[in-house]
Amino acid sequence: MNSSGTRSAILLIHCKDQPGIVVSITDFIFNNGGNILSLDQHVDSEHRRFFMRVEWDLEKFLLGPDSIDKAFEDAVATRFGMEWQLHFSSDRPRMALFVSKLPHCFYDILSRHEAGEWQVEIPLIVSNHNDMAAVAARFDIDYVYLPVNPDSKPEQESKQLELLQDYGIDFIVLARYMQILSESFIDHYPQRIINIHHSFLPAFPGGRPYHSAYERGVKIIGATSHYVTAELDAGPIIEQDVVHVSHKDTVEDMVRKGRDLEKVVLARAIWHQLNHNLLVCGNRTVVFD
Amino acid sequence: MNSSGTRSAILLIHCKDQPGIVVSITDFIFNNGGNILSLDQHVDSEHRRFFMRVEWDLEKFLLGPDSIDKAFEDAVATRFGMEWQLHFSSDRPRMALFVSKLPHCFYDILSRHEAGEWQVEIPLIVSNHNDMAAVAARFDIDYVYLPVNPDSKPEQESKQLELLQDYGIDFIVLARYMQILSESFIDHYPQRIINIHHSFLPAFPGGRPYHSAYERGVKIIGATSHYVTAELDAGPIIEQDVVHVSHKDTVEDMVRKGRDLEKVVLARAIWHQLNHNLLVCGNRTVVFD
Amino acid sequence: MNSSGTRSAILLIHCKDQPGIVVSITDFIFNNGGNILSLDQHVDSEHRRFFMRVEWDLEKFLLGPDSIDKAFEDAVATRFGMEWQLHFSSDRPRMALFVSKLPHCFYDILSRHEAGEWQVEIPLIVSNHNDMAAVAARFDIDYVYLPVNPDSKPEQESKQLELLQDYGIDFIVLARYMQILSESFIDHYPQRIINIHHSFLPAFPGGRPYHSAYERGVKIIGATSHYVTAELDAGPIIEQDVVHVSHKDTVEDMVRKGRDLEKVVLARAIWHQLNHNLLVCGNRTVVFD
Amino acid sequence: MNSSGTRSAILLIHCKDQPGIVVSITDFIFNNGGNILSLDQHVDSEHRRFFMRVEWDLEKFLLGPDSIDKAFEDAVATRFGMEWQLHFSSDRPRMALFVSKLPHCFYDILSRHEAGEWQVEIPLIVSNHNDMAAVAARFDIDYVYLPVNPDSKPEQESKQLELLQDYGIDFIVLARYMQILSESFIDHYPQRIINIHHSFLPAFPGGRPYHSAYERGVKIIGATSHYVTAELDAGPIIEQDVVHVSHKDTVEDMVRKGRDLEKVVLARAIWHQLNHNLLVCGNRTVVFD
Repeated sequence: MNSSGTRSAILLIHCKDQPGIVVSITDFIFNNGGNILSLDQHVDSEHRRFFMRVEWDLEKFLLGPDSIDKAFEDAVATRFGMEWQLHFSSDRPRMALFVSKLPHCFYDILSRHEAGEWQVEIPLIVSNHNDMAAVAARFDIDYVYLPVNPDSKPEQESKQLELLQDYGIDFIVLARYMQILSESFIDHYPQRIINIHHSFLPAFPGGRPYHSAYERGVKIIGATSHYVTAELDAGPIIEQDVVHVSHKDTVEDMVRKGRDLEKVVLARAIWHQLNHNLLVCGNRTVVFD
Repeated sequence: MNSSGTRSAILLIHCKDQPGIVVSITDFIFNNGGNILSLDQHVDSEHRRFFMRVEWDLEKFLLGPDSIDKAFEDAVATRFGMEWQLHFSSDRPRMALFVSKLPHCFYDILSRHEAGEWQVEIPLIVSNHNDMAAVAARFDIDYVYLPVNPDSKPEQESKQLELLQDYGIDFIVLARYMQILSESFIDHYPQRIINIHHSFLPAFPGGRPYHSAYERGVKIIGATSHYVTAELDAGPIIEQDVVHVSHKDTVEDMVRKGRDLEKVVLARAIWHQLNHNLLVCGNRTVVFD
Repeated sequence: MNSSGTRSAILLIHCKDQPGIVVSITDFIFNNGGNILSLDQHVDSEHRRFFMRVEWDLEKFLLGPDSIDKAFEDAVATRFGMEWQLHFSSDRPRMALFVSKLPHCFYDILSRHEAGEWQVEIPLIVSNHNDMAAVAARFDIDYVYLPVNPDSKPEQESKQLELLQDYGIDFIVLARYMQILSESFIDHYPQRIINIHHSFLPAFPGGRPYHSAYERGVKIIGATSHYVTAELDAGPIIEQDVVHVSHKDTVEDMVRKGRDLEKVVLARAIWHQLNHNLLVCGNRTVVFD
Repeated sequence: MNSSGTRSAILLIHCKDQPGIVVSITDFIFNNGGNILSLDQHVDSEHRRFFMRVEWDLEKFLLGPDSIDKAFEDAVATRFGMEWQLHFSSDRPRMALFVSKLPHCFYDILSRHEAGEWQVEIPLIVSNHNDMAAVAARFDIDYVYLPVNPDSKPEQESKQLELLQDYGIDFIVLARYMQILSESFIDHYPQRIINIHHSFLPAFPGGRPYHSAYERGVKIIGATSHYVTAELDAGPIIEQDVVHVSHKDTVEDMVRKGRDLEKVVLARAIWHQLNHNLLVCGNRTVVFD
């Protein structure tokens, strides 16, 4: 359901720019009885690349949800060599949470979920520590404790992948999970693992960014949510925000102020993921907002 | 010229929502040889109203600039009962500045203009004081001094209207002009007079908002750019921003911090006006950004 | 304990400005063996009023916690006619939460509390609805359900005051509590009831501010935490912040974006309250930050 | 003159923390008849370092401006091993502007100066290009054109130093001056050369930061004002701020949005410099605000 209570379909598209794309898509929707609710399209003039998100009302749409895929492929997508995804406002994707010991993002996500803020299922929590097990229990979510060290990592990642498969997980959120995932693990969930990093990337990648920020004497600290790729803290950025700090702020103060930022910057990324607002092209995201 | 150096056309449209609007417009553009550069469309689901901004490349467009109007009217606009405007990226509108004694917005606009930041002509400055005449001279712009008091106002407004006519003015910017315009004056330039008010409206309308903000003990102060309507400080809002203040800030400090805000909030409104990003519906603006 | 792990004392002072105040206070601290950790002082030049917060290390302080009060009164405070408060970094005040049906601020506060973010006890939750009882149970906090209607209000407020007394409550936080407290209730906790209002006051006081914001077409929405006084939404402001919205945002979107703001603006007010950063003078707060 | 119209003195102090510093300073002021207007003091608990800014009214002060230095040295500073500076609210320092071809910061500074926003003299502009000469002429300020290439740099820097000496310059502002100053040049003006860098340092140091920001796909861009040191873009940071960008923003859009940020972030640094709010310790600034 979209915000106005109607069942709708969403197409996310990118391809080489060429004349006639918009009219072909909107013609496809109109001829099948759909009414467009919103359409956001632009051309990246530097790379001559076309990007679009369109959402339409399914109420009088002539094609059933299962037949839209093929119909669109045949009528439009193939002709223009599109990369595209089809989603429905009625989707209720399944998200897994990976956590370590820090509770703030974890709690924030669970309380939003319980308050019904998001249209998502959270059936599984994975952690390399046992600290958050009691919290998970309180929210009635399965919590699997899989400690990781360099030797055990391949084996534990295999178990994690099995779990993700068993629970039918669509995408993963690393809620301050303090482990680096292997490239092979990441390859199973391309553009489907969201991380929150506690700095305004590309400044201060890696560990202890608040300490580095303090040492450098910056006047702002930040948080960055991004898709995880093989290169650490270098994946496509989804959301960033900052807060002002002063010379009086100790590292501990920065950690405290940063927590509030991390929570909201991660939550916004999850919101965009759930609302099918995100496209990735190269190492940049398009956030239809 | 748009930002990628191509001559393009821009349509701003709103009307009652109904199926087939987007496809009709994009079909019109495509069939006449246009390539869409960006399209931003949404439906206000509460009022069932359709809003759209579309920009397309004119390079291979089959219709000349002068014939697009009628062709679009006949092919699309009439059928859907649209309110619409056509603009060109090559437009260079003529803007008049109204000022009183405060120089900050005035200087900011003139220096942006001279630096070539905006595609605009500024042939005329009108003021109820003589203070800024020397600055205007420095920038080689005609400066007309028309002092206003309650008695002389009708007469002076007539002169202003004549001047605006003579100079072929398209829209007016009140850069901290400390006079209230009459309803009849405003009627000559509907949605074409932009004001900057030094508060986050609707808080603190009218005079001395920084004093009121100080008295109320607010922790943020703001600025609001809006179209001028007959009701004071109540017109459609284009841009707003705020800055944090503390208990240490005196009224004078707020005035100082506010100046920087006023400059940028007014400049952003002018930018949107010049880029044909603005639609007004009722008392709300749509800012295609 | 303050952030550097030392036990310290904090004095909050305001009085008529006059020469010799700072030296008298710092002399009192130094002569009793205290080392000042921070001192923030200013004079409101318009009202000739002196404001100060000073914190000093108690490690080698010669006076015991219980004898500082009288010693300071005799040595300094009486002479200058000061209004003042003494606090200790080791204080662990007792806070009561008043809630209705909305969970976001409530959850945010409880999870911060459980994560050990704040030095506070939360022994009591009062609500006019039963909706949040299960959440309170999960956090093992007493939850008292006291439904309120115009007729029962005086009686229920009496019960609330009894509860607050029984639980030894130091201050009250209204976490989106949807009831107006009577003047006589408020008088029992002067400058000790903190409310979160979902607008950038003084804009949009009272009910349904997001609806009013939508109607007015503002480009920012805000939240305001303030001390509760007899006049609705007019008490001294502690913290304010805003977030940008666009024409695409429905009232529902504003409610969603506003929730994140309300959480953080209320949490910052509680932080300042717990760190003894707040002074009230007239209807304005001094926030030593 | 300070903001309340009184002549006042300002002391900026840092030293090893030890008991009795504040009382010694405030005793010195009180005993000489001064009334403290504001005092901001804190201890960096990690480095056990004491920082303070104090401002007091000179109206009834017994020491003349010329004798305060020695009196303070003898009575207080030597005993505690202080690094300190004495300033007067009536100071009117002399600032030199270094510019290249970009006008936005340059214009912003000159128009603030002319509007009387700052208590400063600007007698000299130095540039490696002739582009801004006409603007300088308009503001009646001497403009010296000194083109720089790798070979001529030592010679031209000698001429610059001579000019700075001749004009009695107190501090230098690089208003987007596109040349790297030599270490020996910088040594003549330690903590007296302010630069504006067009990124949120430490991200994107060096040239073309907007291009790098675009490539990295960041969602915020920033500006940083800092004191110039021998290491490029690595000096103590004075002010930083950011603005949000989206995937639609081209490099050109970032340059445009960044200009407004650069202007205000540089202007705030100059404001702090002129109000004697800045201390440098190691590579970090203390900004008393």
